Amino acid sequence: MSKFFTEKYSSLEPYAPGEQPKDLQYIKLNTNESPFSPAESVAKAIEKEAKSLNLYSDPECVTLREKVAKVLGVKSENIIMTNGSDEVINFAFMAFADEKNTLIFPDITYGFYPVFAGLNRIPYQEIPLKDDFSIDVNDYIGVNKTIVIANPNAPTGLFLPLEDIEKIVLSNKDNVVIIDEAYIDFGGESAVKLTEKYDNLLVTGTFSKSRSLAGARLGFGVANEKIINNLNTIKYSTNPYNVNRLTAVAGEAVLDENDYYMNNCKKIIENREFTKCKLQELGFEVLNSSANFLFAKCDKIDGKTLYLKLKEKGVLIRHFDKERINDYNRITIGTKEQMEILIQKIKEIFKEKQL
Amino acid sequence: MSKFFTEKYSSLEPYAPGEQPKDLQYIKLNTNESPFSPAESVAKAIEKEAKSLNLYSDPECVTLREKVAKVLGVKSENIIMTNGSDEVINFAFMAFADEKNTLIFPDITYGFYPVFAGLNRIPYQEIPLKDDFSIDVNDYIGVNKTIVIANPNAPTGLFLPLEDIEKIVLSNKDNVVIIDEAYIDFGGESAVKLTEKYDNLLVTGTFSKSRSLAGARLGFGVANEKIINNLNTIKYSTNPYNVNRLTAVAGEAVLDENDYYMNNCKKIIENREFTKCKLQELGFEVLNSSANFLFAKCDKIDGKTLYLKLKEKGVLIRHFDKERINDYNRITIGTKEQMEILIQKIKEIFKEKQL
Repeated sequence: MSKFFTEKYSSLEPYAPGEQPKDLQYIKLNTNESPFSPAESVAKAIEKEAKSLNLYSDPECVTLREKVAKVLGVKSENIIMTNGSDEVINFAFMAFADEKNTLIFPDITYGFYPVFAGLNRIPYQEIPLKDDFSIDVNDYIGVNKTIVIANPNAPTGLFLPLEDIEKIVLSNKDNVVIIDEAYIDFGGESAVKLTEKYDNLLVTGTFSKSRSLAGARLGFGVANEKIINNLNTIKYSTNPYNVNRLTAVAGEAVLDENDYYMNNCKKIIENREFTKCKLQELGFEVLNSSANFLFAKCDKIDGKTLYLKLKEKGVLIRHFDKERINDYNRITIGTKEQMEILIQKIKEIFKEKQL
Repeated sequence: MSKFFTEKYSSLEPYAPGEQPKDLQYIKLNTNESPFSPAESVAKAIEKEAKSLNLYSDPECVTLREKVAKVLGVKSENIIMTNGSDEVINFAFMAFADEKNTLIFPDITYGFYPVFAGLNRIPYQEIPLKDDFSIDVNDYIGVNKTIVIANPNAPTGLFLPLEDIEKIVLSNKDNVVIIDEAYIDFGGESAVKLTEKYDNLLVTGTFSKSRSLAGARLGFGVANEKIINNLNTIKYSTNPYNVNRLTAVAGEAVLDENDYYMNNCKKIIENREFTKCKLQELGFEVLNSSANFLFAKCDKIDGKTLYLKLKEKGVLIRHFDKERINDYNRITIGTKEQMEILIQKIKEIFKEKQL
């Protein structure tokens, strides 16, 4: 650390992204990416856009917002487009939480929430999930805090039914409730429609998972227009051109062929259920995932050993060195072939270890 | 504003980007973009990258940093890549300024500095430029504050010689000095080399102007490795994937053909000097610009009227409703043909107004 670094961030613990091996020799089941490339129309759209790269992008993302609005069934005034959904979550923490309106979220959830809280110096409380890793809705009723819940949650994959979300939103009318729906397209039911009914609900989404654009960074928020205006105040004070031209046209091309991506989600759900069965056959305990990953443990082998052994064999999964979930691994759902290799490699490990 | 918006940002005044007309009927000389599209290789590189968009980008930008390092003549450990140079400036304000190490910058300069200061709640002092709009170096000697200077400055275009920069850096050893070189390739001399000598100097740059990538959002910072590490702490607490895959390969393709872009800079400099002469012939007072724009006024017509009249005639320039510079307009340098049309339109306006 240089002597110039501000004291206020001296204890900041940055987010640790999943490994991104440079050699590409691995089967990557560690960062919840889609195994499917975007459709050919994305390549065509961005190639065409290249000649206009000397010009700034549209800070309002008018065309893109209209297309998102159409797919989600809301109005474009209710949408903000951001540099991944991380950015809209950070903007929301900045806009709607502070010393008075502190943050509350589960103890096991997306690792960026405490980082963003730390960055913005917002006090936060982590509410333990129940023993089965589900959320106890009562923990969030009438708390008068700014709430953030990933739904489905990560890394558990568990989905909280909409009626529970609605109870939380209803009972915290003086605070914004942020529902992070990064994984909603893999079996959950979106709360987007509820934003028309409640002025304190912000739903965030991303093109990174179900829409195969992790490498393009595109996310969005859906809420009451006043909430969107506040988020835009932060955006225009941070990075008005947060969605670049290439990402914008890539997103537009994706939405023009939405069926292709939603069909990929179906395949991923099938592969998930296939993998779940196979893991259970091998003695794993697997949570009921509504996401594009599984969260699983096996009494025969500890989480870290399995992760390391699989890495040796060319398969990357994600292990979190964190209390309560040390025994588990998060396994991204890839293609059927990739999941078959995973199962094969686990069998090999069990055999080698005579388990 | 929603009732949920945090008090701490209630007086935040966001940055106002230059107009981005949707109809493209205008000759756009208002946002300092390059009039030249990127070379064909950029289109090829991004098209090829499209199939990998389902995967996250490399948060370390290893390949891109190596190429930037080679072009700038520094080591890649001394570089951070960011989402435009706005982002690295914001990161630097976050990392190196606070209540104790307050900010100092000229009263007339890039409009995002006070916005970022406000966003991060860092007290700042604006030092008036001299009457001729030049910077008085003595104002920055031994001030023990975090200094940010755009060099060349915007919207004046005036360049501060390197020996003056060095004096400022040398006399403020306990604070970081940020030199924002967004416009350096249009006639200035870069301070990048000084970063090897001084551990408190951060030089920032962008691909938006001289390298025709405004629409892709790519910027960078060059400094001592410790400074870079601090900036990375902020980056990894904000948006580790701040440079997406498409922008990264676009940047790499640009650097592979650096001569094309540097040759475009020469053309822009020629067009700038041509336009300056023509404006002077028409009675304008024009500052000595080392940037891709001119800052000019004419006693015969006030700044706002000229801006509005030109807009009516299809030419957009930038007028700032700000004391001291109300009479001026900032005119981005486009192609020779565009600049000839600008001069022609000004002549028409003068004729219509019988000036």
